[in-house]
Amino acid sequence: MKTLDWNQLSDAEQALALRRPALAQGGRDAQVADIINKVRAGGDATLLQLTRDLDKAERRSLRLSEQEIDAAAGRVSEELKAAIELAIGNISAFHRAQVPAPISLDTQPGVRCELHFQPIEKVGLYVPGGSAPLVSTVMMLAIPARLAGCERVVLCSPPPVNDAIVYTAKRCGVDAIYTLGGAQAVAAMAYGSETVTKVDKIFGPGNTWVTEAKRQVAADVEGAAIDMPAGPSEVLVIADESADAAFIASDLLSQAEHGPDSQVVLVTPSQDLAARVYQALAEQLAQLSRRDIAAQAIDNSLTLLCRDLEQAAAISNAYAPEHLIVQTEDPRALLPKLKNAGSIFLGAWTPESVGDYASGTNHTLPTYGYARTYSSLGLADYQRRYTVQELSPAGLQAIGPAVELLAATETLDAHKNAVSLRLAKLEKQQ
Amino acid sequence: MKTLDWNQLSDAEQALALRRPALAQGGRDAQVADIINKVRAGGDATLLQLTRDLDKAERRSLRLSEQEIDAAAGRVSEELKAAIELAIGNISAFHRAQVPAPISLDTQPGVRCELHFQPIEKVGLYVPGGSAPLVSTVMMLAIPARLAGCERVVLCSPPPVNDAIVYTAKRCGVDAIYTLGGAQAVAAMAYGSETVTKVDKIFGPGNTWVTEAKRQVAADVEGAAIDMPAGPSEVLVIADESADAAFIASDLLSQAEHGPDSQVVLVTPSQDLAARVYQALAEQLAQLSRRDIAAQAIDNSLTLLCRDLEQAAAISNAYAPEHLIVQTEDPRALLPKLKNAGSIFLGAWTPESVGDYASGTNHTLPTYGYARTYSSLGLADYQRRYTVQELSPAGLQAIGPAVELLAATETLDAHKNAVSLRLAKLEKQQ
Ligand SMILES: [Zn+2]
Ligand SMILES: [Zn+2]
Repeated sequence: MKTLDWNQLSDAEQALALRRPALAQGGRDAQVADIINKVRAGGDATLLQLTRDLDKAERRSLRLSEQEIDAAAGRVSEELKAAIELAIGNISAFHRAQVPAPISLDTQPGVRCELHFQPIEKVGLYVPGGSAPLVSTVMMLAIPARLAGCERVVLCSPPPVNDAIVYTAKRCGVDAIYTLGGAQAVAAMAYGSETVTKVDKIFGPGNTWVTEAKRQVAADVEGAAIDMPAGPSEVLVIADESADAAFIASDLLSQAEHGPDSQVVLVTPSQDLAARVYQALAEQLAQLSRRDIAAQAIDNSLTLLCRDLEQAAAISNAYAPEHLIVQTEDPRALLPKLKNAGSIFLGAWTPESVGDYASGTNHTLPTYGYARTYSSLGLADYQRRYTVQELSPAGLQAIGPAVELLAATETLDAHKNAVSLRLAKLEKQQ
Repeated sequence: MKTLDWNQLSDAEQALALRRPALAQGGRDAQVADIINKVRAGGDATLLQLTRDLDKAERRSLRLSEQEIDAAAGRVSEELKAAIELAIGNISAFHRAQVPAPISLDTQPGVRCELHFQPIEKVGLYVPGGSAPLVSTVMMLAIPARLAGCERVVLCSPPPVNDAIVYTAKRCGVDAIYTLGGAQAVAAMAYGSETVTKVDKIFGPGNTWVTEAKRQVAADVEGAAIDMPAGPSEVLVIADESADAAFIASDLLSQAEHGPDSQVVLVTPSQDLAARVYQALAEQLAQLSRRDIAAQAIDNSLTLLCRDLEQAAAISNAYAPEHLIVQTEDPRALLPKLKNAGSIFLGAWTPESVGDYASGTNHTLPTYGYARTYSSLGLADYQRRYTVQELSPAGLQAIGPAVELLAATETLDAHKNAVSLRLAKLEKQQ
């Protein structure tokens, strides 16, 4: 862990300290475009072939049958089911609270303006595979989709799809589970195949293949929209000397174990706390099963010594972290100063893990500095807003002359004429 | 205007009928990238040079001075100012109604989850130049920015910036007006220069140079986010035989005069109405100053004869128009069936012009089929959502075991440990 004294740095050094490493692009553009084109041309047959070649899985159908789903669900322990149930309850409660109310108002008499909300019709969720079944990802992506009212919710995960993922998907109301991973899964959902539903928007994390495929299908209007740009996971912790160093170390390591490219930043006015955190890190790191990964991320991580908590907030705002943990004597007092974070965790009893899994907030958050402009995933991402307006004859008579003049100013005769014709007709009627 | 009987078409022909023409890309990628790189390297000097070369304007400063602004405002007629005032009142009322309330709830006892909103700090507005001063664009982009609470709102428009644009920008609270157009304006706002504020997000329409520049800066995390993808303007009108053909013709022509690539679609079950609309189109077209442009767009436009209004709604939903005008006997009855439109105009007294200028709704809307997933521009586009959570010791004790089990299931030891450490400490304290 590198330690820098913020107030000893020049402006340029400060900017450099907060700069994320360049994303590995991997030069996958052409390969991914090739997979997408193949899937568009070949449909199911190509998808089964790619699954055979890339995932080494032989399947007759891309979609899990009801029997397969029921069998998988039967193999999930009751204890895990109970934990999932608790998480579903909280995530549902928080996302249900986000269901918007339509707006309707007369901006002036006879001029009715309305804001309506509509679920995005078909959505596709991507859940990465691997040894660890990301049941939390299933919940975070599927629950808001259902609460938003999306008509069809499908999910892709590379084979073999873990039992707990299958159970959770079914429990969260996913309509179809496809055993598909990588760029081919994204292509299948963006363009459809005989078996796979073409969706309007794709959600979920993934490796560089998935990320590049999402980027490509989002750039094509015939493809699909996507949730947000991708980047490595990050945490920034603001702590003062009152903080428990072991807690902070455990939070930094939670982030670090996500991958060697995880970004971990500690900002504190207390050199003493920093020293205690280093000590705790060393002790805890040794116990972790993923210690090699976590150690790499910790090696690349940063402690910034600052003047006071106000400066710590300013540093965090400049960095725009995905996760922001505040462990200070009065964390809520700092909240009004905090901006540009994906999710903020207040106080000693709020580790990032609770938000990752079960408190109710969504763990899909903007990374890589995108938290300056992008939101944390919520119900709004599964809906769209549109406006409706309706004028009475009197409303048009009142507003009409202003519209005529504005249209004339913009030299748009036909716009003006659309009003003038109507005003003339109304005048005749009176 | 081409007329097709929807029910005589095959599925493939129906899909083809609703397909937008391919966007002219113009192969500007490299030229635009070159301009962006030059602006980043050269700052103000390059911007002044590009303005000299491309806009044939010699300026000493990129920013309009207070004197220039006051002088411009003085040249705007009182009549136009009054029309602008009426529009500002309505647009402000409708966008003020969109200011969101934060959410705070305990998803379970001791587990507080909150949704907060924050204005995007710095926003940049682009207003195209040309002979017609787009005062409506200024209002539609600047009013929500101010109501959202953005700290800094800047505006670029190519020189010479029209007096009415300057006046409206000042009136809507824009902080700085730069005499900059094209890709160089977008580059300046995305990366900043000595004079131009670097912004977080860029809003507004433009030609292919502007569109391509917005695409490029949005793809760069160090650049700026953008409002929505661009495409030619569109209207779809659903009408029955009760409709006034002259009104419909005037609405179709309003759209058509925006440009030769405007998309204009009439969907009606009444062949008789269609015939009357053609007649009215011919009469009105002859009167328009932009008749050459409008005639081209009308030539490329489409009438779809359908079975009934229910089918008309389905066609509109499949097309996903930017503007949807409903002129039927009972337009509100059709509203629940209408999806995927940017803005919906109900009834005979609600021409598109009112929404373009003054009713209160935003005229910045998703085009080119993006209305399936993108929203009409609103206050939400100038803010971001983020979550906050805070657990009490009892809250963590209640939720902790579920989090531990879920983290263990995902083989994320450190995530589990962050909870276990805290639970152990609480146990010791009791
Ligand atoms: Zn995590
Ligand atoms: Zn218009």
